[in-house]
Amino acid sequence: MRVRAVVEYLGTALSGWQYQPDTRTVQGELEEALFVATRHRTRIAAAGRTDAGVHALGQVIAFDVPSGVDLRRLRLSLDALTGRDITVVSLEIAHEGFDPRREALRRTYRYTIVNGRPASPFLADRSWTIHRPLDERRLDECARQFVGEHDFSAFRSADCESRSTRRTVYESSWKRDGHLLEYTVTANAFLKQMVRTMVGTMIDIEIERLPPQRLAALLGGGSRESAGRTAPAQGLTFVRVDYPDR
Amino acid sequence: MRVRAVVEYLGTALSGWQYQPDTRTVQGELEEALFVATRHRTRIAAAGRTDAGVHALGQVIAFDVPSGVDLRRLRLSLDALTGRDITVVSLEIAHEGFDPRREALRRTYRYTIVNGRPASPFLADRSWTIHRPLDERRLDECARQFVGEHDFSAFRSADCESRSTRRTVYESSWKRDGHLLEYTVTANAFLKQMVRTMVGTMIDIEIERLPPQRLAALLGGGSRESAGRTAPAQGLTFVRVDYPDR
Repeated sequence: MRVRAVVEYLGTALSGWQYQPDTRTVQGELEEALFVATRHRTRIAAAGRTDAGVHALGQVIAFDVPSGVDLRRLRLSLDALTGRDITVVSLEIAHEGFDPRREALRRTYRYTIVNGRPASPFLADRSWTIHRPLDERRLDECARQFVGEHDFSAFRSADCESRSTRRTVYESSWKRDGHLLEYTVTANAFLKQMVRTMVGTMIDIEIERLPPQRLAALLGGGSRESAGRTAPAQGLTFVRVDYPDR
Repeated sequence: MRVRAVVEYLGTALSGWQYQPDTRTVQGELEEALFVATRHRTRIAAAGRTDAGVHALGQVIAFDVPSGVDLRRLRLSLDALTGRDITVVSLEIAHEGFDPRREALRRTYRYTIVNGRPASPFLADRSWTIHRPLDERRLDECARQFVGEHDFSAFRSADCESRSTRRTVYESSWKRDGHLLEYTVTANAFLKQMVRTMVGTMIDIEIERLPPQRLAALLGGGSRESAGRTAPAQGLTFVRVDYPDR
């Protein structure tokens, strides 16, 4: 029986999604909990392999369980067996062979910056603090240039192994709410560290007062060095995955 | 020179406001930071002595510093010398002898409940999770009965040493935003554990389906045993203190 679950996690004390021996990862914690709960060793697939320190509100995962398993009880067991920084929000039966990564149509990420005030004790582990005031209109002008299909080779980490570097961005915008600056980006898929490099580059352009049009030149397939810094992981949250209606 | 500061803290890893040897408290951390920054040992006064685990967004404190101290640099030093769960948001010169507790006109607290969903990894250390759905209209009906001047002797901890148990509540209301239930209460002053006992009693009345009017009987000066449970500290935040204009 194929199961689909929505998982939330606070990435602070986790070494990212992907299993690694001798360190806490989301996949490792969930696969161990699933083994304890069902006595079956199963591989769990995820919509997106988040980096160490990155959070998730709507990560979608899939795995097989012996048929007849009570999903309500399984959710409670998984929730109890993982640390309180990981929550299995919901479990439901999926179609046979459901692949949360390949079947995803769109992913949405959010990046949070605390701006123009001292670091907040409440947001320290889930934001990037930049004291110097940033202009959200200029940032938003940068953000809009990412919309459309582009070659994002300048916006991925050196060890990214994706063959194609073309991605389609559907939404890309900044909003300010007091001292909180939030960037939201939706695309068909993302390269490794793509959002963090996009955010770091926009911040560099804003701080150095460069013309936002600078970005356009980078979207034709530049090298990683031509773009800006990589924004810190703790500001990034994997918000949502969209699938086709079946 | 008398200084007034606004302080924020995430109470999770702190044993409350008041100084205690061999444990991290807000007063202890700040007095130590102040000593390192100014080389003067000073006692710090606070508007409210919060319990272990309770958070603050707008705690107001006061202390003396040698005249001529640069307040901008002092704020940066205090911020750097305390852990990242304590932030000194602002520092300003106060009138001589400023007493943040005695001069306060009103204090506002907020209590946060995550209701009707699994515990959130993002709110676990700053809320009380109650799975069973709660009716915010019934809770709000309870809350409104606290408004006015009453004898709150049923709503304080056994070791509370206040002579008078009469307090005046100006605002007391519940609001729901999705799975988030928030209680806001403003009063001239609070007894020890008063907000947590008020919240625990309202939740007991709602869960046991007792008439909200039950509360009225407790506001005439009942004993602590006549009221309900004490809500957990981690859901409580000291939000704001109001002072008279000078």
